[in-house]
Amino acid sequence: MHRDARLTTHVALAARALGASGFLLADTEDAKIEATLAKVSENWGGEFLFEMGRPWRKEIENWKTKGGITVHLTAYGENIQGTDVLKRIRKTDRDILLLVGSQKVPREFYTGEVSDFNVSVGNQPHSECAAIAIFLDRFFKGKELNKKFENAKMRIVPQERGKKILVKHVFPSKN
Amino acid sequence: MHRDARLTTHVALAARALGASGFLLADTEDAKIEATLAKVSENWGGEFLFEMGRPWRKEIENWKTKGGITVHLTAYGENIQGTDVLKRIRKTDRDILLLVGSQKVPREFYTGEVSDFNVSVGNQPHSECAAIAIFLDRFFKGKELNKKFENAKMRIVPQERGKKILVKHVFPSKN
Repeated sequence: MHRDARLTTHVALAARALGASGFLLADTEDAKIEATLAKVSENWGGEFLFEMGRPWRKEIENWKTKGGITVHLTAYGENIQGTDVLKRIRKTDRDILLLVGSQKVPREFYTGEVSDFNVSVGNQPHSECAAIAIFLDRFFKGKELNKKFENAKMRIVPQERGKKILVKHVFPSKN
Repeated sequence: MHRDARLTTHVALAARALGASGFLLADTEDAKIEATLAKVSENWGGEFLFEMGRPWRKEIENWKTKGGITVHLTAYGENIQGTDVLKRIRKTDRDILLLVGSQKVPREFYTGEVSDFNVSVGNQPHSECAAIAIFLDRFFKGKELNKKFENAKMRIVPQERGKKILVKHVFPSKN
């Protein structure tokens, strides 16, 4: 497990919970993160792509070849609050690859060659996990938090107090 | 440094960047996290309280004695999306202590004795860092991302490409 494994797991889980379709862990392999993500999707449902180990340059080239755009989340970019950057991103109507670095990212990330947009979630240093969460929440206008994850073995029943989980054999039949 | 130190640092930094006034690290001491937070505030400005090492029970008792309420962020609680829980929290008009656990939290957290509200940011497992970020962003209606941090030594100038930082001696005089 590399040193940021727990944080990387959180970023991937947040991406999944907040409406992303997948997570590409570039330049690194980590069987434990992969297993955690597989287990979460198996238990809690939904389709979530997890890939790892390919160089970031390849992933981005591949993404752009397929017509997608890239959005680099960085404290240095255009602020998601108080600018029209999110509107301009939506207007492209293209699939989006969000780029975040767990360490210092290469200089090229700040250029147009790699990143079509550089977006900041506030201009203070904080966390790629927080930044991804807020970007997705705003991008999907909050709706992702009511999204149903299909083929789940377990499901939480939200409530004011305590913990309640339904396991598959007791799901109401309409589900 | 305890095993979740990096993640805890991210939670604290996200809290700071997203408008929280402080961070209480209960039941644990970690000089490195403390130093990181102090350094960030020194460089990037603002007032941010950081305390650590006191038992969670004491912190919560103390908070409630001073008239504050507690909001426990958990996948099991009332969903922040599609319910009126945020409205009810705002209506109390009280200072809020957000509770998150890096590990499994004690059972009491789900009771009314400890938590005045149990709020989920979606009902999927993800990350306390993402949950805190979205709670704060929604609670402050996004405005925290334009907040000015006073007495900063450095300031980012947001832009579409590249990185730009102003250091104190070149700040325009009106600042």
